[in-house]
Amino acid sequence: MNNHSKKPTVEVCLTPALFDHYDYKNSIVVVIDILRATSSICVAFQNGANSLVPVSTVEESLSYKTKGFLIGAERHGQMLEGFDFGNSPFSYMDDKIKGANIALTTTNGTKAMNIAKDSYKVVAGSFLNLDALANWLVKENKNVICLCSGWKDTFNLEDTLFAGALTHQVLPHFEMSINRDSTIAAMHLYDLAKADIFSFLKNSSHRIRLSELHIEEDITYCLTPNQASVIPVLKDGVLYDASRINEMAWGNGQ
Amino acid sequence: MNNHSKKPTVEVCLTPALFDHYDYKNSIVVVIDILRATSSICVAFQNGANSLVPVSTVEESLSYKTKGFLIGAERHGQMLEGFDFGNSPFSYMDDKIKGANIALTTTNGTKAMNIAKDSYKVVAGSFLNLDALANWLVKENKNVICLCSGWKDTFNLEDTLFAGALTHQVLPHFEMSINRDSTIAAMHLYDLAKADIFSFLKNSSHRIRLSELHIEEDITYCLTPNQASVIPVLKDGVLYDASRINEMAWGNGQ
Repeated sequence: MNNHSKKPTVEVCLTPALFDHYDYKNSIVVVIDILRATSSICVAFQNGANSLVPVSTVEESLSYKTKGFLIGAERHGQMLEGFDFGNSPFSYMDDKIKGANIALTTTNGTKAMNIAKDSYKVVAGSFLNLDALANWLVKENKNVICLCSGWKDTFNLEDTLFAGALTHQVLPHFEMSINRDSTIAAMHLYDLAKADIFSFLKNSSHRIRLSELHIEEDITYCLTPNQASVIPVLKDGVLYDASRINEMAWGNGQ
Repeated sequence: MNNHSKKPTVEVCLTPALFDHYDYKNSIVVVIDILRATSSICVAFQNGANSLVPVSTVEESLSYKTKGFLIGAERHGQMLEGFDFGNSPFSYMDDKIKGANIALTTTNGTKAMNIAKDSYKVVAGSFLNLDALANWLVKENKNVICLCSGWKDTFNLEDTLFAGALTHQVLPHFEMSINRDSTIAAMHLYDLAKADIFSFLKNSSHRIRLSELHIEEDITYCLTPNQASVIPVLKDGVLYDASRINEMAWGNGQ
């Protein structure tokens, strides 16, 4: 019986600027950029993408074009010219996604992923893969840090709400660390918001920022739980679905 | 009629680590360290202190002893040996406070005050001077940043709750900036907590940290609104009550 064994911890890091305060080397870091990077990443894998390289700059993403990659870039909420994708989850539902290798840069999400790269494992989280991710984290049984990508290093609501949702879901199998105030706050905020997250975010910064882009459908979709069963995990700087990583391991005779 | 004039903004900065993201040079910064630095500072002025110098190090505080100052120092929640005060609000209710000049260093609050020193004005906020401070801010009619001292640069609940309380109180006279998510979150959390803040904080980091020190009375007092009518304002690195600063200005023939 394992009733008395120590549970791993779950914590919420509210912005990448605070990440150095966490013991990330021994933790699985769930990178969260609900609007819209980690949501779009989940959609890409759900639609059969083979791999996705999160890169920090537009130039880096562009350089993957000649290597046969599909390339994506978002800045200020919009797709850049000359790229195959921006940051809309719907653009990753195309047939050309199946089997594709993708390079993507976004304002916040892909940067947060690179900040977290020295962690035990890095995984992309969104409402779209909430249940699958929670189940996977419980099985992994390691300390978890929910890293909210935020907006240019500052706090944002939608990432915090997802961190609260995920924490609620895994908490029976985890415990809170002593530095738990951000975790408590995220869970309280999710409790307040969960009946209608879209309305809760009505006056939030990012909703206002994106309102000129007329992407209400994107937002509604990104707030819809459990549209994907994928676990995009970083391996040597490249995201693969966890099931594909297992295949690779078996293929290598490991 | 001023109905169409632009209102100043009110914002919440969740930890000192994020302060550089704010336009503090044109703002009044309300430094918040509920447990217990800014609460104790309000008590000191309410009990007639002449001035209080917030210093960053224990050595600096000690050096003021020979200048005839009363000196205070808190580390890890406890008063250090050789000092007149720690961080308990009750220790600042003594008769010796009247007319005294004080030097104080604490783990978080006095450091946050020094980080904010290049702002338009810096003022100490706590539940103890909530109404007085809100009225003063409305009269000043400048942009306001509520700076939560947090715990060693990370988020804490009690400072965020006070930021939410203060924002609620002044908001009819202010507007939120575009980067408003932390402000919205602080107000929501205060709404959840306000019926019984003490219980809301039951599982918070600082309550757990301080629980071994048996200072429940300190905490209860620090969460009690409107026990002081003072506005401790920083002037050339020294805090004075705002009314005293006005006197000094008149004394100088200004």
